[in-house]
Amino acid sequence: MRQVHVAIAGSTGAVGTEFLKLLEDRDFPLASLRLLASARSAGKTTQFKGQSLCIEELTADSFKSIDVAFFSAGGSRSREFAPAAVRSGALAIDNSSAFRMDPAVPLVVPEVNGADIAQHKGIIANPNCSTIILLMALAPIRSLGKVRRVVVSTYQAASGAGAAAMQELEEQTGRALRGEPLSPTVFPHPIAFNLFSHNTTIAEDGYNEEERKMVLETRKILHDPDLAITATCIRVPILRAHSESINIEFEGPRPSLDAIRTALTEFPGVRVVDDREANHFPMPIEATGIDEVLVGRLRNDLSHPHAIDLFVSGDQILKGAALNGYQIAVEWLRQTSDG
Amino acid sequence: MRQVHVAIAGSTGAVGTEFLKLLEDRDFPLASLRLLASARSAGKTTQFKGQSLCIEELTADSFKSIDVAFFSAGGSRSREFAPAAVRSGALAIDNSSAFRMDPAVPLVVPEVNGADIAQHKGIIANPNCSTIILLMALAPIRSLGKVRRVVVSTYQAASGAGAAAMQELEEQTGRALRGEPLSPTVFPHPIAFNLFSHNTTIAEDGYNEEERKMVLETRKILHDPDLAITATCIRVPILRAHSESINIEFEGPRPSLDAIRTALTEFPGVRVVDDREANHFPMPIEATGIDEVLVGRLRNDLSHPHAIDLFVSGDQILKGAALNGYQIAVEWLRQTSDG
Repeated sequence: MRQVHVAIAGSTGAVGTEFLKLLEDRDFPLASLRLLASARSAGKTTQFKGQSLCIEELTADSFKSIDVAFFSAGGSRSREFAPAAVRSGALAIDNSSAFRMDPAVPLVVPEVNGADIAQHKGIIANPNCSTIILLMALAPIRSLGKVRRVVVSTYQAASGAGAAAMQELEEQTGRALRGEPLSPTVFPHPIAFNLFSHNTTIAEDGYNEEERKMVLETRKILHDPDLAITATCIRVPILRAHSESINIEFEGPRPSLDAIRTALTEFPGVRVVDDREANHFPMPIEATGIDEVLVGRLRNDLSHPHAIDLFVSGDQILKGAALNGYQIAVEWLRQTSDG
Repeated sequence: MRQVHVAIAGSTGAVGTEFLKLLEDRDFPLASLRLLASARSAGKTTQFKGQSLCIEELTADSFKSIDVAFFSAGGSRSREFAPAAVRSGALAIDNSSAFRMDPAVPLVVPEVNGADIAQHKGIIANPNCSTIILLMALAPIRSLGKVRRVVVSTYQAASGAGAAAMQELEEQTGRALRGEPLSPTVFPHPIAFNLFSHNTTIAEDGYNEEERKMVLETRKILHDPDLAITATCIRVPILRAHSESINIEFEGPRPSLDAIRTALTEFPGVRVVDDREANHFPMPIEATGIDEVLVGRLRNDLSHPHAIDLFVSGDQILKGAALNGYQIAVEWLRQTSDG
């Protein structure tokens, strides 16, 4: 397989750091690695495979001879610099929401719509974390029968708001235990022993941005513009794995739970955790640090003859962000390599 | 108003302690108070209105001259001793699940079906905490149009498993922050920075006991045996307020959000917290220690023309247990007092 020159824009954040780890730990045909960040971080060094890599300032000129540029530096940086990467001949894999709904930009979960990668014109978008984790369960189930409607409620970890938010959860929880004032700075509300509606802007229809992403991105990835979805996105005091309670209604009779369990088991990237006797189901603590999305609590919905209920947990930084981006790069490489 | 002789069976638990506080702080016409607990706690004393009350052992003879006996000592104690209280002439208000589905026993949320109190034959059951909190939002909304189906996912606090579970959450979280082993004892899984499916027995249909309670008790309280409900009950690392993400589907066109907001605002025991601009919605931290159930995130469901979404938080020990029981006693007293 050919060797690939990689750049990471936003290499010091929670997702960028994880992407660095993936390139270090896994079998990626890396020719070279360039770390890019804001002027503030430029000049600092990071250890990578026993070497010191110097972090350079992200500019329009950062992408010469780069094959793949991974962006996780926020939407405005992506909008400014991803086109520059493309002009330099790189494939930009963008973790921000900047290009996700652009009809010219594939939005990809490799296990679900990896074939869309071939349509790219320089940028491939990495979906929203809650959307990816939903789709890892929804896609295999959807292969068994036409889905009419999805009702999902999320239990989202602090990591979705970045490394500083994870630190705020830990430090603030310590303060709460000591009876000290909580003084939130990253989140608008205390996160220690608390939960709240996802802190993104609410539109006129009452949905927040995170919920809208789940609705629109899911439809785009599945090529199913009519799929009915409602989402309620809630931040919970968990460090780095998102969970979701999902109700799926089929157009016609629901598939058997055995068929659903088989489809999930056979789907790459899913692990079924559904032990009723041991009361062992998906938990963030077990989804943390692993590639697979955990799926369980599978049951026929007593309230609707065509519906089922399930519960999932997935690592927000891995499959919800960096791992999915990494997998896009691997799949792109596979599709564009000879034989 | 006549004076009432009260007994509390299970006076040392999380709910019993709260009931004691209610009798101390509020304007209840208390003639006398008898505290009952297991032999283990008998002989200990508790302060009440500046006096030392001695805790007596709970026996079949504990209820002589008692008018109202509040039970929160677990299902088996209720089954054993509530009939004894009734034989002694007391009204037993039972917080356990022992009698809730008994057709001869009213199951009461006073704001919703207070009139059912009059049907009692000695025992009135206090509903499951998640059920009460759901109903405080569902009942006023249901007054505006026939509800066909409810899809609910819960975010349940540790307090539902008792005072020891709350202590486990706090102590274990401290250990997690110090990087020490978690060793859960009350819960089957770590609760520090984790969440998991409600730790009750799973039936053959895949629903756990808590979910089944929400389905069956809601139907009984609303006198609506055909109401379709599915629930997914999840324990989260929160101390004492439950939250719920609720999707309500009407038979016909949904009422306007204005009409729903008005119905909720006018309903006793509900506070609407629904400030989209400030991103301020129901949160456990604000529901803790207050009587009202907080309701917000009201919006039309984009996925179904007849459905709405909302989010609620309510204090599990207050409205979810002790306060509702207290209110049953107050309403019973009102109904049975002259003029």
